[in-house]
Amino acid sequence: MRYRLYYWPGIQGRGEFVRLALEEAGADYDDVARARKGGMAALQRLMARRSAPPFAPPFLAAGNLLVAQTANILLFLGPRLGLAPRSEAGRLWAHQLQLTVADFVAETHDTHHPIAGSLYYEDQRPEAKRRAALFVRERLPKYLGYFERGLAAGGGRWMLGARLTYVDLSLFQVVAGLRHAFPRALARRAARYPRLMRLHDAVAARPRVAAYLASARRLPFGPADLWRHYPELDR
Amino acid sequence: MRYRLYYWPGIQGRGEFVRLALEEAGADYDDVARARKGGMAALQRLMARRSAPPFAPPFLAAGNLLVAQTANILLFLGPRLGLAPRSEAGRLWAHQLQLTVADFVAETHDTHHPIAGSLYYEDQRPEAKRRAALFVRERLPKYLGYFERGLAAGGGRWMLGARLTYVDLSLFQVVAGLRHAFPRALARRAARYPRLMRLHDAVAARPRVAAYLASARRLPFGPADLWRHYPELDR
Repeated sequence: MRYRLYYWPGIQGRGEFVRLALEEAGADYDDVARARKGGMAALQRLMARRSAPPFAPPFLAAGNLLVAQTANILLFLGPRLGLAPRSEAGRLWAHQLQLTVADFVAETHDTHHPIAGSLYYEDQRPEAKRRAALFVRERLPKYLGYFERGLAAGGGRWMLGARLTYVDLSLFQVVAGLRHAFPRALARRAARYPRLMRLHDAVAARPRVAAYLASARRLPFGPADLWRHYPELDR
Repeated sequence: MRYRLYYWPGIQGRGEFVRLALEEAGADYDDVARARKGGMAALQRLMARRSAPPFAPPFLAAGNLLVAQTANILLFLGPRLGLAPRSEAGRLWAHQLQLTVADFVAETHDTHHPIAGSLYYEDQRPEAKRRAALFVRERLPKYLGYFERGLAAGGGRWMLGARLTYVDLSLFQVVAGLRHAFPRALARRAARYPRLMRLHDAVAARPRVAAYLASARRLPFGPADLWRHYPELDR
């Protein structure tokens, strides 16, 4: 199966959670809007289609099927790529964790866009400073503490035990994104989350992930990404 | 199967999406924190448990299984309650729509809490006014237009065609919540979304839903709910 991933070409964003799963599995895929001439037009055509259109990228085409919403894409891909538990209970638990990652990511985004996605950061800077300060003090420890406790309770190397799942890849990305966006705030707190930091490093060291991260396919974090570094928000 | 739903006792909130599915199906369930003495303590005990704890309510117990994240609960319940399509493609599409509902609900909540959930509304009112104005102008039409087009494309009575699914129940709740929180803004725009408004009424008229809405089990919208009416935000 050759998968086609549709996502904005210039950023890691939410597409990165899907890219990491495809890369770790060595899956055959096109990153359509980046790789193909006319890829962006194809993305926009699919968003405007009449039947079952995606609300927003990323979305994934697999044969005739088009799946949108990041966590839904991973729910679909997980068993196909060998990155999900076998039991229904395990799959629900993995998906539940992934949806909690999604909530955390949305809150992280809103630190620099608390008023509207349609406004520039510069037009909502005072609000962003206020939101980011409370994010760092309250939400960051709440989410990271939750995942750290999950790792401790599992007792295995990975979030769901002995086998790596897409949840581990996503947690790697969450830590990488926070290290980029909030280096000071995270450095001050990293010692409280030793298992999560080790998980980040263990994912980064996997041969396929390491090769991906060293390749041109891995975009750098940038000023239009979901994770953005603004020193004034990083306290 | 007797289900146990765990959610904050005083509000509709995200628990309401699960309640509506259980009620429409005539399922046997306890709304634990409301119905039982010690129910809140039971909710808090489960949140603090070591293995696979929920990050937040609502969560649902079914035998030994504990499922959290609203959309994940509906993914689990849908086939069991006859409220989901039979094919994998249909289930992924239903879940995708439900995750889009979840995003819309989170954005709706943040109109009155753009800075932090830990602050009172009164302590973030200027920011809320700014966010709500852009929500009404940009996000409300984007989401409602998306669901309206989905209904038009399906051509059936319900979002996924001829059979009601949990997505329809959730869209009913979204419209009901918006009518409560943004009555002026919604009244001004309702004519653009005739299918969605008809869907709301058709769900409300289903015998089990109608009985539920008329019962004491349906909590009124209130000042601590996810959907809140502040006239200054409703332009």
